[in-house]
Amino acid sequence: MVSAPANIESLYKFTDDVSDPQLFESWKPKIAAYRQALADSLPAEYKLPESEVPGDLDETSFNTVQFLRETKHLTPAEREITESSATELLRKMEARQLSAVAVLKAFAHRAVIAHQLTNFACEFFVHEALQRAKQLDEYLAVHGKLAGPLHGIPISLKEQIGHAGKITHGGWVAWLDNVPKEDAVTVQVLRNLGAVFYVRTNEPQTLMHLDSNNNIVGRTRNPHNSLLTAGGSSGGEGASVGSRASPLGVGTDIGGSIRAPAAFAGVYGLRPTSRRISTFGGVSSGKGQESIVAVAGPLSSSVDDIELFMRAYINAGKPWDLDPWSLPIPWRQVAVPEPRNLTVAVMYDDGLVRPLPPIARGLKHTTDKLKQAGVNVIEFKPLETEKLYEVANLLYSCDGNHAQKEMLRPSGEPLLPLTKWALSFGQGDRALSITENRELNYQRDRLRKLYNDYFVQNKVDFILCPNYCGPAPVCVQDGVEGPYYWGYTSHFNLLDLPGLTAPTGLYADQKIDAKQEYTPRSAIEAIEHDKYKPELVHGAPICYQLVGRRYFDEEVVAAGKLFGQILEIE
Amino acid sequence: MVSAPANIESLYKFTDDVSDPQLFESWKPKIAAYRQALADSLPAEYKLPESEVPGDLDETSFNTVQFLRETKHLTPAEREITESSATELLRKMEARQLSAVAVLKAFAHRAVIAHQLTNFACEFFVHEALQRAKQLDEYLAVHGKLAGPLHGIPISLKEQIGHAGKITHGGWVAWLDNVPKEDAVTVQVLRNLGAVFYVRTNEPQTLMHLDSNNNIVGRTRNPHNSLLTAGGSSGGEGASVGSRASPLGVGTDIGGSIRAPAAFAGVYGLRPTSRRISTFGGVSSGKGQESIVAVAGPLSSSVDDIELFMRAYINAGKPWDLDPWSLPIPWRQVAVPEPRNLTVAVMYDDGLVRPLPPIARGLKHTTDKLKQAGVNVIEFKPLETEKLYEVANLLYSCDGNHAQKEMLRPSGEPLLPLTKWALSFGQGDRALSITENRELNYQRDRLRKLYNDYFVQNKVDFILCPNYCGPAPVCVQDGVEGPYYWGYTSHFNLLDLPGLTAPTGLYADQKIDAKQEYTPRSAIEAIEHDKYKPELVHGAPICYQLVGRRYFDEEVVAAGKLFGQILEIE
Repeated sequence: MVSAPANIESLYKFTDDVSDPQLFESWKPKIAAYRQALADSLPAEYKLPESEVPGDLDETSFNTVQFLRETKHLTPAEREITESSATELLRKMEARQLSAVAVLKAFAHRAVIAHQLTNFACEFFVHEALQRAKQLDEYLAVHGKLAGPLHGIPISLKEQIGHAGKITHGGWVAWLDNVPKEDAVTVQVLRNLGAVFYVRTNEPQTLMHLDSNNNIVGRTRNPHNSLLTAGGSSGGEGASVGSRASPLGVGTDIGGSIRAPAAFAGVYGLRPTSRRISTFGGVSSGKGQESIVAVAGPLSSSVDDIELFMRAYINAGKPWDLDPWSLPIPWRQVAVPEPRNLTVAVMYDDGLVRPLPPIARGLKHTTDKLKQAGVNVIEFKPLETEKLYEVANLLYSCDGNHAQKEMLRPSGEPLLPLTKWALSFGQGDRALSITENRELNYQRDRLRKLYNDYFVQNKVDFILCPNYCGPAPVCVQDGVEGPYYWGYTSHFNLLDLPGLTAPTGLYADQKIDAKQEYTPRSAIEAIEHDKYKPELVHGAPICYQLVGRRYFDEEVVAAGKLFGQILEIE
Repeated sequence: MVSAPANIESLYKFTDDVSDPQLFESWKPKIAAYRQALADSLPAEYKLPESEVPGDLDETSFNTVQFLRETKHLTPAEREITESSATELLRKMEARQLSAVAVLKAFAHRAVIAHQLTNFACEFFVHEALQRAKQLDEYLAVHGKLAGPLHGIPISLKEQIGHAGKITHGGWVAWLDNVPKEDAVTVQVLRNLGAVFYVRTNEPQTLMHLDSNNNIVGRTRNPHNSLLTAGGSSGGEGASVGSRASPLGVGTDIGGSIRAPAAFAGVYGLRPTSRRISTFGGVSSGKGQESIVAVAGPLSSSVDDIELFMRAYINAGKPWDLDPWSLPIPWRQVAVPEPRNLTVAVMYDDGLVRPLPPIARGLKHTTDKLKQAGVNVIEFKPLETEKLYEVANLLYSCDGNHAQKEMLRPSGEPLLPLTKWALSFGQGDRALSITENRELNYQRDRLRKLYNDYFVQNKVDFILCPNYCGPAPVCVQDGVEGPYYWGYTSHFNLLDLPGLTAPTGLYADQKIDAKQEYTPRSAIEAIEHDKYKPELVHGAPICYQLVGRRYFDEEVVAAGKLFGQILEIE
């Protein structure tokens, strides 16, 4: 039996701590100014009175989702708008039942309150957004048609996505000086489609945590329970979409950064196959790194909106005209499949970190319902998951963390615990050679073929699995911060397979999901299992992940619709 | 003015010569056995009598193309078959006017003679092919339909493409022991489509020459003039298709390796965008290297056959079921465009090595004809071609040639002159760091966007340019071997743009293409220009290259059809 190490730091491999407290002092005024600008960017008329913002959000569980559903500070009209899908909003705007201004105002109002409770935003710019919404309303009035397939849809954007004229720091203090002259390609595409931008959302230092904490604006709280992590690295997006502060958000994902926050917020999140949504023009440490490429993708409370986003972005947005990395593959119209035509292979355990009781229950519930509906459900025996995990971790740090350190060093900012963990992946500070990198790429490609052969030869349509071994864990528990284990998502980043995170409709329940006797197989499994306390995660959403073949993103989303019907979601 | 260095070796950057004459001695019996097996693989009944094979092919110009057009050793029926396109052959086989056996026999006969004259093959297996052709004929008789969209089409394959049960050495002596257990994915796909394999073709040591010479079977001669290079690295394919020893061949291209041999043989060759044709299962030094990826693609005397190959391979072959690196993008049906709807930007000079008189004439002829037909022709002012060349060369050797040396070292084989040149690209033996590699990838991506923006913002459909600064040069001239300059093709490997090589219908002519006064701008330009002697390259074909946007392969091929009509080719 393996037990969790008494001191998590015993697992750290990195040694080159580039923080410099004295240097960091010189950056504190800039951080203070940024935080003040954020505070000032909240329109006073939308704010919850300070007296109503609980002062102990980090000490006592607070449910922002429930608060927003009930608060009198939102009018019934605002609530109706913000609880509609983007698909519905478009319909109503086209029918002139709603204006883009009304839609924006409602979401901005809800977003400001949600931010006060979860700290999900880095920046609001509601005034600018209102000007834009007015123009869209005028366009519709003059031309008698929507300005584009995302006309008037408020979309939240992960802060790392470059925005012309706005600080774009990506969670690195030293990048507080970075103000791009041009919008990222995805911002250009979405604006061309009619989207309205009003808020940019939080992310972790290094962008390499499944949590969203940094030295600039601090940590984002889970909208269901303020003690829990919102996940990361697109944690601001998870909290935004989870609070219905936005109907659609854009995150990025190199190891689980869309799927973990979506799962922890109980919403849909799609990690598309690479090269479908442009990542050109963002801040990250991955410049020129193509062994495991980051992807961008949508989060939403509605699977229809996930499809709306993908179809509009690709077919009308034509990102390949702006970024030749983006593939000119149309988004195909794929019908919701018949259950009896589907074979789903379920990964109940990846062999490295066994799912905790709520997640195991969620998987069982989902597969039971699928079977009842006529889906052919088989068990997936994990294929070389240990190798997947090893290769991914070696690749994440194969430059010896050089790029990360060059982005951290200029500010001397202190390294957060999960940064120390991320810098310890693979061989930590030891830079591999190009030859070693190529060998790992070759291993990756071998594994990609292994999985593709599995799908093809067994006529399996999808793998159903967790997004993380548990529901959202507590941000800091007994001095330990998590999540540590990325395998359930990072396996599919290495394989470059599309993965849809989706709600099961269930929530962690301390009465049902009791802790079980179990002998961990490794230190990391021990860490993840030891800290599980049913009473702490009570009420956290339970999601599943649906993984399809490479570039079969359309089939994954169509199956997500079917599963939503079967599970009676929405 | 820069002049060519007196000693080409002064330009070599590599220092680590891994050859070992003593060790190489121990490999000579294996090489001899391989050569004997090749000689034995030529069916006696197909061979030109030894007395009729000129003994001075390497000293005196011999035109294999003309010989094959006229020789009495081929029957009229054989000539009719071998001078048909694959598209025509399919039609005739479907109509039962021809059997697959008759087709195979005719091409095998012509191929054996062509090999005796050009040394294009590494291996024949005609008996095996006849069995296969018989099965296809039986299939057609029983089922009343073709076995697939390439039913009975003889296809030559570059030797590096793995073939189950057959030595696959890729031009490296040390790989004479390599006998793959499985076919490469492309072999599997083509076989599933009905293709018949009977010959595997030659390539250079390291696969990194625009010539095809190695220490195993020696050099392939140009089918138009035995003194000239057949080009490389798919030089065996160029000679095969150029001699009509095969109607279709498969080559690979990382810096010009399909286009140079096609250009030197006066045939069509397509370097598709990456990930359309699988390269899985070949021998190369590029395992896990993805900064400039190798691609596979077809060569043919017919542009219709280029399209036939691509459409069949992708739409019916579905390579993504066997290799998830292959993109599931269908081959789109694109109509031959109207001339007046096209804008073509012509690169008369890339700014680094000015085209020699025959190539300049070919470009002018082509653009004149295009203009007469109504095409909008503008001049392309090369965009950062120096940077393209520098980044490509640094990337080719960024592992310090580690992979190459690991493949050369075990045999101790002597390094051929063009191997020494290839090992001198970039920084030669100095391995870059992963950080440097990523910076180069970033530069590459910046350049890709620069070119994509050029196409989109100027509404340019294609760039028209040379494949190489000259027609096929003499293999060895005054002790110097060439070609040295890859820019006209490698620019587009770095940019990952599809390029179609196509005949202009013109040939180098010593009476017209006189040497001109010119002051070279660099040592490499001086080398390429100094050695130009109109009388030596007289009769060599002149081709152009048509380059399109990334993944707009279909448009490139469709335009190639139009240009063929305009230039009255075929």
